[in-house]
Order: sequence, then C-alpha cells, then structure tokens
Amino acid sequence: MVKLEQTEESLNSTFQALADPTRRKILMQLVSGEATVLQLAEPFQMSLPGISKHIKVLEKAGLIERGKSAQYRPCRIKAEALEEANLWLQQYKKLWEERFDRLDQYLMDLQQTKGKD
Amino acid sequence: MVKLEQTEESLNSTFQALADPTRRKILMQLVSGEATVLQLAEPFQMSLPGISKHIKVLEKAGLIERGKSAQYRPCRIKAEALEEANLWLQQYKKLWEERFDRLDQYLMDLQQTKGKD
Repeated sequence: MVKLEQTEESLNSTFQALADPTRRKILMQLVSGEATVLQLAEPFQMSLPGISKHIKVLEKAGLIERGKSAQYRPCRIKAEALEEANLWLQQYKKLWEERFDRLDQYLMDLQQTKGKD
Repeated sequence: MVKLEQTEESLNSTFQALADPTRRKILMQLVSGEATVLQLAEPFQMSLPGISKHIKVLEKAGLIERGKSAQYRPCRIKAEALEEANLWLQQYKKLWEERFDRLDQYLMDLQQTKGKD
C-alpha cells in the first residue's frame, strides 16, 4: 500500500513537472548528456533564477539529479520517474484498445449472426 | 508553427490534468464506458461539486467530453489528447534508448580496439 501511495505521489509530481514547455525542453536537452544550469539556460530567453526554479521542480520530481561538483553541479536525467508515467499511459492505452477490440469482436459476431439468418 | 504551439498548450493542460490521482482514477473508470457525474463520484469520498471540478479540468484539457443529454450529460473519453502525451513520452524514451545504444556501441568498439592491441 505504501508503495502504491508512493507511486501515486510520484506520478503527481512527474506529470506536474511535465506540464510546462520549458521543463519538457530541458529534459529533451538533457537526453543528449549532462549539462550545467548555464548551458541549459542558453536556448531560453530566461533569467538564470527562472531556469533554476524549473530545474528545482524537475529535481524534486526525481526526473533529474545534480552532480556533487561544488562549482558546476551538472544536471543529468534520472529515467525511473518518467518510466512510471510511461507505464501509467501504456496501461491506460492498453485498456482503451482492449475496449475497442471487444467492440470489434462484438460487431463481427453480430455480422456473422446476421449472415446466418 | 501554430500547430506546434497548439500541441505545446495541449501537452501543458494534459499533463496538468494527469497530475492528480482523482483525475487519473476518473479516466481509468471512463475507459470501460461512459458514466454520469453521479456514477463517477461513487467510488470517491468527495462531494459532487468536488468531483465536478475535476471533471471540468479533464474536459478543458480535452481528455473527456460530455454528452448533450440535458439531464445526465454523461462523460466519455476523448483519446486524442492522451495520445499526444503518449507520443511525447515515446519520443523522449526513444532518444534516451538511442543514447544508451550509442554508449553500448562505443564500449564494444573500445573492447574490439583493445583486443587488437
């Protein structure tokens, strides 16, 4: 149960973190390798404190982590949290597709029954 | 460009809508078929106005739509918005996996080069 609650909370903060275009772009940027806050700020017309705020949200959600090097503390991706969000969406998609498969089957059965008439 | 901006906004509101456990449960419930607000409220210890608020967020994000029947206005799933969120995560996952494939290849090349020494 604790695990389930943890997952729920983790999904909350993951989806919350993804609900912002700057944060999504930062994640996409980090996919190609770790980067400092200064490097991450470059493509955005945003102040360093502005970018830092977004990075803190991503870090709190467990989507990224920061290195211990005191001067730069480069950011890097932690894949697990996003994998949970992915699993939730896949589970939802699977149920949704199963529903349509059932509907297809029902329509086929209906057609076959009609053909026998 | 307009399309891209629309997608960005749509992703914002989709992820925002998914960042709440009640809203995720409502969506999972609607996967098995349409339901009225009263039916959706049943499993939750929440007031009808409370549930209605969540339903409005889902509706605004385009994740569900409501029927026109004046009395009940049943809720049903609209799959497109969630498909966009799914695509974003798949794209991210693909880039992430490609990065590890490149790393694997690099390590294999390194091993082969060492073998030749």
